[in-house]
Amino acid sequence: MNFIRKIVKTRSEEDEKLFNELKQLLNFSPRKISKYKKAFTHSSLQIQDINGNPVNYERLEFLGDSILGSVISAYLYKKVPTGTEGYLTKMRSKIVSREHLNELGKDLNLLSFVKSNVDEANVGDNIHGNIFEALIGAIYLDKGYQTCQKFIYENVIDPYVDIEKLEGKITSYKGLIIEWCQKQKKKYKFDTYEDSGNENIKHFSVKVSIDGELVAKGRSTSKKKAEEQASKRVYYAFQNQISIN
Amino acid sequence: MNFIRKIVKTRSEEDEKLFNELKQLLNFSPRKISKYKKAFTHSSLQIQDINGNPVNYERLEFLGDSILGSVISAYLYKKVPTGTEGYLTKMRSKIVSREHLNELGKDLNLLSFVKSNVDEANVGDNIHGNIFEALIGAIYLDKGYQTCQKFIYENVIDPYVDIEKLEGKITSYKGLIIEWCQKQKKKYKFDTYEDSGNENIKHFSVKVSIDGELVAKGRSTSKKKAEEQASKRVYYAFQNQISIN
Repeated sequence: MNFIRKIVKTRSEEDEKLFNELKQLLNFSPRKISKYKKAFTHSSLQIQDINGNPVNYERLEFLGDSILGSVISAYLYKKVPTGTEGYLTKMRSKIVSREHLNELGKDLNLLSFVKSNVDEANVGDNIHGNIFEALIGAIYLDKGYQTCQKFIYENVIDPYVDIEKLEGKITSYKGLIIEWCQKQKKKYKFDTYEDSGNENIKHFSVKVSIDGELVAKGRSTSKKKAEEQASKRVYYAFQNQISIN
Repeated sequence: MNFIRKIVKTRSEEDEKLFNELKQLLNFSPRKISKYKKAFTHSSLQIQDINGNPVNYERLEFLGDSILGSVISAYLYKKVPTGTEGYLTKMRSKIVSREHLNELGKDLNLLSFVKSNVDEANVGDNIHGNIFEALIGAIYLDKGYQTCQKFIYENVIDPYVDIEKLEGKITSYKGLIIEWCQKQKKKYKFDTYEDSGNENIKHFSVKVSIDGELVAKGRSTSKKKAEEQASKRVYYAFQNQISIN
């Protein structure tokens, strides 16, 4: 016990703070804090290790991109047994598109961890996605493939990957629900409000009622996302009655 | 015990044969034989499952390609700590090039497993690499990432990946050794002979002697590869004396 306490105590105050923030972000206890520090270090700082090698997130980005690709590939392979090789490749490109990765990085507010000599306004939008990939690389080096896979499911696949949307069959679940309610002469209500709780990142919640009855709830980092999440749940609740063609 | 024997016995004779061949090929006991059967099924057979979905190796090829990429990325990340993102990307492309994968598939004689309606002469050279990738996909589905990684180390990285060669610093270890011996006025001898033992695939062995003393041995599926392997070992034995610039 004393031994364990000693290890924990040898961490600097700064590391201790990062450890706690990472624990909340990652949903597990990180071990090798140095890997995450590297994932959050921009090349503009021009940091070098004792051998003169640059220390920044670019190499981790290479690693994370590849691990992310394989986790998404395996997910798609199992999720869409009817998909051809071409279909799977196309779907994967959509999921790991620069635009989508930037959005994921922004959602997790990763920029707040980044150390850089460049002004936030001048780093460019791609930094969000790059850091997201580097973070995946760091998780892989810290905890291995399984933990990485779990992180990707929790932060990419479960909340955001939607085959119907990716296929372009549904562009907006909210739109679909409203259209269906209007056709069926049902009254619908989206009750959306800020609901950040104790979290650092702003969150929104929404309750969707149909004909005065609560059908589904949603919660996410933007109003639009929370509404889409709740609407998707409404869609699944009435799936037999709602046609998407 | 009886229960286990019963499971084994329910395998058909054909599956039993495939199981034994796979065990030799993979260096572990496969569980889900159907995955490997799919990896060896060409689309020309036009096989469909009960839902009308095509059964062939193309989807597994998509999966295997992605898993292979991530294992190679992680290997390179750790192996070359000085390599930039661009360097790592370039090295990975060389390792997973179509040409290299075809060579790997040929080495393992994977075509002998393939069921196809197309003449062997007409399937094209890429089938070797495609089947190799599909096999990796099947291993992933059967046994998971760790076993896949082990297979890739045993069949790609350990025998064939050589950073010095990939960087173009050394094009042939045999050439390097001969050149060095000539400069140093040393007598060298490559004693190369067929050495297939009990294996299905033809193998060659080589003994390299310098000034009458055996320095290194090599064994592989071609004379050239066996000689390169042995020469590389000679290179490492004399590394302090041989300059590659």
